[in-house]
Amino acid sequence: MSNRIKVGIVGATGYTGVELLRLLSAHPHVEVTAVTSRSEAGITVADYFPSLRGVYDLVFQTPNDALLDKCDVVFFATPNGVAMKEASAFLAKGIRVIDLSADYRIQDIPTWEKWYGMTHASPETVAEAVYGLSEMNRESLAQAKLVANPGCYPTCVTLAILPLLKSGRLKENMPLIADCKSGVSGAGRKSNVGTLFCEAGDNFKAYGVSGHRHLPEIKQTINQLQHNIAEGFVFVPHLTPMIRGMHATLYLHLQDGTDPHRILADFYQNSPFVDVMPEGSSPETRSVRGANLCRISVQKAPQHDIWIVLSVIDNLVKGAAGQAVQNMNIMFGFNEDAGLQITPLLP
Amino acid sequence: MSNRIKVGIVGATGYTGVELLRLLSAHPHVEVTAVTSRSEAGITVADYFPSLRGVYDLVFQTPNDALLDKCDVVFFATPNGVAMKEASAFLAKGIRVIDLSADYRIQDIPTWEKWYGMTHASPETVAEAVYGLSEMNRESLAQAKLVANPGCYPTCVTLAILPLLKSGRLKENMPLIADCKSGVSGAGRKSNVGTLFCEAGDNFKAYGVSGHRHLPEIKQTINQLQHNIAEGFVFVPHLTPMIRGMHATLYLHLQDGTDPHRILADFYQNSPFVDVMPEGSSPETRSVRGANLCRISVQKAPQHDIWIVLSVIDNLVKGAAGQAVQNMNIMFGFNEDAGLQITPLLP
Amino acid sequence: MSNRIKVGIVGATGYTGVELLRLLSAHPHVEVTAVTSRSEAGITVADYFPSLRGVYDLVFQTPNDALLDKCDVVFFATPNGVAMKEASAFLAKGIRVIDLSADYRIQDIPTWEKWYGMTHASPETVAEAVYGLSEMNRESLAQAKLVANPGCYPTCVTLAILPLLKSGRLKENMPLIADCKSGVSGAGRKSNVGTLFCEAGDNFKAYGVSGHRHLPEIKQTINQLQHNIAEGFVFVPHLTPMIRGMHATLYLHLQDGTDPHRILADFYQNSPFVDVMPEGSSPETRSVRGANLCRISVQKAPQHDIWIVLSVIDNLVKGAAGQAVQNMNIMFGFNEDAGLQITPLLP
Amino acid sequence: MSNRIKVGIVGATGYTGVELLRLLSAHPHVEVTAVTSRSEAGITVADYFPSLRGVYDLVFQTPNDALLDKCDVVFFATPNGVAMKEASAFLAKGIRVIDLSADYRIQDIPTWEKWYGMTHASPETVAEAVYGLSEMNRESLAQAKLVANPGCYPTCVTLAILPLLKSGRLKENMPLIADCKSGVSGAGRKSNVGTLFCEAGDNFKAYGVSGHRHLPEIKQTINQLQHNIAEGFVFVPHLTPMIRGMHATLYLHLQDGTDPHRILADFYQNSPFVDVMPEGSSPETRSVRGANLCRISVQKAPQHDIWIVLSVIDNLVKGAAGQAVQNMNIMFGFNEDAGLQITPLLP
Repeated sequence: MSNRIKVGIVGATGYTGVELLRLLSAHPHVEVTAVTSRSEAGITVADYFPSLRGVYDLVFQTPNDALLDKCDVVFFATPNGVAMKEASAFLAKGIRVIDLSADYRIQDIPTWEKWYGMTHASPETVAEAVYGLSEMNRESLAQAKLVANPGCYPTCVTLAILPLLKSGRLKENMPLIADCKSGVSGAGRKSNVGTLFCEAGDNFKAYGVSGHRHLPEIKQTINQLQHNIAEGFVFVPHLTPMIRGMHATLYLHLQDGTDPHRILADFYQNSPFVDVMPEGSSPETRSVRGANLCRISVQKAPQHDIWIVLSVIDNLVKGAAGQAVQNMNIMFGFNEDAGLQITPLLP
Repeated sequence: MSNRIKVGIVGATGYTGVELLRLLSAHPHVEVTAVTSRSEAGITVADYFPSLRGVYDLVFQTPNDALLDKCDVVFFATPNGVAMKEASAFLAKGIRVIDLSADYRIQDIPTWEKWYGMTHASPETVAEAVYGLSEMNRESLAQAKLVANPGCYPTCVTLAILPLLKSGRLKENMPLIADCKSGVSGAGRKSNVGTLFCEAGDNFKAYGVSGHRHLPEIKQTINQLQHNIAEGFVFVPHLTPMIRGMHATLYLHLQDGTDPHRILADFYQNSPFVDVMPEGSSPETRSVRGANLCRISVQKAPQHDIWIVLSVIDNLVKGAAGQAVQNMNIMFGFNEDAGLQITPLLP
Repeated sequence: MSNRIKVGIVGATGYTGVELLRLLSAHPHVEVTAVTSRSEAGITVADYFPSLRGVYDLVFQTPNDALLDKCDVVFFATPNGVAMKEASAFLAKGIRVIDLSADYRIQDIPTWEKWYGMTHASPETVAEAVYGLSEMNRESLAQAKLVANPGCYPTCVTLAILPLLKSGRLKENMPLIADCKSGVSGAGRKSNVGTLFCEAGDNFKAYGVSGHRHLPEIKQTINQLQHNIAEGFVFVPHLTPMIRGMHATLYLHLQDGTDPHRILADFYQNSPFVDVMPEGSSPETRSVRGANLCRISVQKAPQHDIWIVLSVIDNLVKGAAGQAVQNMNIMFGFNEDAGLQITPLLP
Repeated sequence: MSNRIKVGIVGATGYTGVELLRLLSAHPHVEVTAVTSRSEAGITVADYFPSLRGVYDLVFQTPNDALLDKCDVVFFATPNGVAMKEASAFLAKGIRVIDLSADYRIQDIPTWEKWYGMTHASPETVAEAVYGLSEMNRESLAQAKLVANPGCYPTCVTLAILPLLKSGRLKENMPLIADCKSGVSGAGRKSNVGTLFCEAGDNFKAYGVSGHRHLPEIKQTINQLQHNIAEGFVFVPHLTPMIRGMHATLYLHLQDGTDPHRILADFYQNSPFVDVMPEGSSPETRSVRGANLCRISVQKAPQHDIWIVLSVIDNLVKGAAGQAVQNMNIMFGFNEDAGLQITPLLP
């Protein structure tokens, strides 16, 4: 293990935390040396997550444990509002930080504060953060000290339109609709009536229609790439009764003569984790279960001048922990797919 | 039981069949006197559906059984292509027919034949059929001899836009998008790999994007009500891992100054089975589970000149058997809600 | 509504509460006049439970509301420890009480206090309480002022062995094993990590193996009926990923020549809510979904002198709210099945 | 890939087939060179299983394809009755065979023929087959040419009692009860009404109570290890609404002074895929999801001289494809855990 980098995870008791632990357990260049949890300090990881019995000998530490200071990189798998207070200290010591929460995703501080209902504790650090949509920002990620790992919806939606935005082929002043469906694990591992088995099971509903925190994040990216498109962006998230998985159905207007399948296929031809499927196919969420993959397909709506783009990810992998590991790989010069060559679990 | 009407069900071994049996078991003006099934003839209903033990003493009969001829009304809960061959004989004997299959839903025969891949066996009867969207066609249903009970998607989608179409407030030449999600029971109770528990469970996918049979059915209604709208209609169905329930998310463009919530609330104020919820709310499918209800709400998209209308039904009730009973009530002059005052099952 | 009895529900925001509201909405002799909730006072029932929109006009009241005093019967659908403090006041005013919590189920106070970890607040009232297993105690329930409605496991298990215990046919000094499986709604509608969709879904586990609160309740009944049997009673509950439903698999030793199917069938021949199925069949939980039914079947183990008895209920209906209504019917001299003639919801 | 063994899979379109493909895709010493399917010949594996897009370039071949003859080992992932006809030809050519079907599991031909309803096509080969419960037969597996991979129930049940049987500590003439619960994938990927999402979902039931094909398989092993125990063996399988996972709850009688936890822990201390958990704990199926693991715990029933042993596996991994790969590793002298160091997927 001597030539492996040392990794710490702050707040490893949630779903992104346990998923990081799963992924990193098979990573060839990494050793997890510290996991922290304020509430579970003193408990072994194997007792807390029986799925990790025999995999880790670690014990949850209190967050201020000195072990983190010996790490090469620290992942924050904490609720929003923690990393913004604690990340700077690590950065100051030369320890790189990958934040899976939302604290560094939005560059405009007032926008962030409005949507997250908090005063940002380290606004001066936000500009240093690289937005960790790997396929968009590979070059800057390679130099990054602080990565703002994207939200699950932004990952699923943005990957589906990124090449179209970059090519400037979306029609301005027309709607760009993202009808999104998420598995329940996106809500995290916290006690909450709304995500009980008997509330979320055998049920389907929209939520956050009037405004969801991932909306400004997606719009920020759109704005960076093609002007006058974000205004027409409509985003409706839905909760669907499955554990993992996210599906985006995008309805968009393209300039005449555009071949969106070709644009997507070309753009992602060297991206190991984005699979542009044959035109006319429909990806299903289970085809990426447990894997760091986004599968995308294009369909032409038969009735109108509208294109439909379908995109699926595992919200906990490409939508969270997997992309975080992918970003770590890029930051440390490992192969981008190191530790991430996972065949999806089906059925 | 002497003053009850006699009801027969052809093909009662599927989900719409067992749902008809459930609903009719509590109907005050009805006696089910004959149920037929080619494959299960001789088996008691209670043996076939243990949920009906103690509820019915009936035995499945072969379809040509003379018992059907003594009925006042016959429901066809058969696969597509059966009713078109058998319904006429009942009509000729003065027996009313409610067809839950697609055989009489499309007035244009070539369109039907193209989408259903069959030659229609009784094209001359199609014009007699009344389309059984109860809230749209109450008057003609009261006189109907043959009812074409609508599909589940058409019910869920059309109820959400019917008042807007009638008021002529939809913008022409703009898209009208119906992103729909169905529980698995919509696929019926037939052996099929795609709807196995391990295929449909913990999974989400679009299907039929390039064309679904319910598309021409919805467009037919749109065309009857507001011209130049159907061309912009885009319909994408998805399969979601729940047993019952359907959710439509509609994105539509309205003429300036339109108040769609008001239009919907006014239109349905005397309809016992359509609940227009407060503006800004989001109906969930379980809030109608087991009940003959459609709940609808309106939301304004914050980013664009787009309205979002959300609509939920139980696909087996308001989307099939419940609406069929509602139509029967209208046809026979019973209270529209006779036997249908069911409180949804939650959780 | 003038000749209907007035019903109050204390703590109507949980699953047994909403289920009581569902069942009572269709009851011909009852009017629900008061529902209370400390946390939701002022909220309408229809806003809190959208499934009840259009069904009730009630508003949650604070528990000490005077409306309860005008009731003929008050249901406690509260957590354990509430009814024991509040029920006596109603009894003193001549208002009958049906307690769905565990407060009055165990006659031996030290046993109750040990298992429930509380000092009992009204031990003197416990002896007045009639244990509400309807099929066991019909006569005393007809006179009861205070009913201790049984737990779900005790209902499912005890109904399966009650006739065998009454007939004295169980072998003494032999094991009597109840391997039980419960849907997740049995854990109630409270925020809790363990019953989140992503924790309880796609998962199966035993719990409470070393001791579950329903164990002393079942043993109390066994002891009342056949001595020297309770010592051999082994009870292992499991959590299974479904919303409603409970299944007990009982392994028991009978004296030679016993015909358990006959004993069960004879015992329950006049019980509308217990269905003894043909010998050799296997009841499934969905065959009773939403209905106040217990279905039981007997199988002979082919390999040994052991009988297997299978028993299913809907834990929220016959295991909770439905049996409570059944008990109310008995207490007030209504037909035992008034308001409870419900056909199960399948699928 | 030159020093990897060549692997063929016959009948790779089912759940054990796709699971073999998933596991072998990450195996360091193996190259899958041929996959066959009578029904899907000509289709690429990636088209048939989108989860394998980018993982395999293989095309399904007709079963008699010459490619199989170049393999070092052939897995049969076929329905029962296929391997018994085709395996001998491979064996004759020196190609080793691992049969995941039931064809070679039962040494007594009349017993096999009675339970499987077929005449065995190669009874003379059965004696050559080594029963592939890896932890029981490591030595003989190392020499095996033909392996009969165990059924899922036999794996889950037998691992839990193997050390107790070997130590001779089970009481004779007492019941040994295995109450087992299986996820739906155990029924395979074939069209079948009973395992539709809407039939198996939100439902729990026993099945095969009067006799299941895995009963004689378990009894055969018991008989080999401790006489007079198999007669008391009672096996009741149940279907539980989850995709993967199997849970056995065993009730057994041990001779006085036995410490079953110690016996199990000692026996499995060098077995990488059996985890004996702390006494008193309860393993959950998701703690082994996707991994080749069996987790076992022991609990003392508080009420009687009965021990409870709980055992969980992923039925498709340790209960099928994973154990097959483990057996291949043993047969070819690889590390037993080569390609199988998989962290379970949770949630």
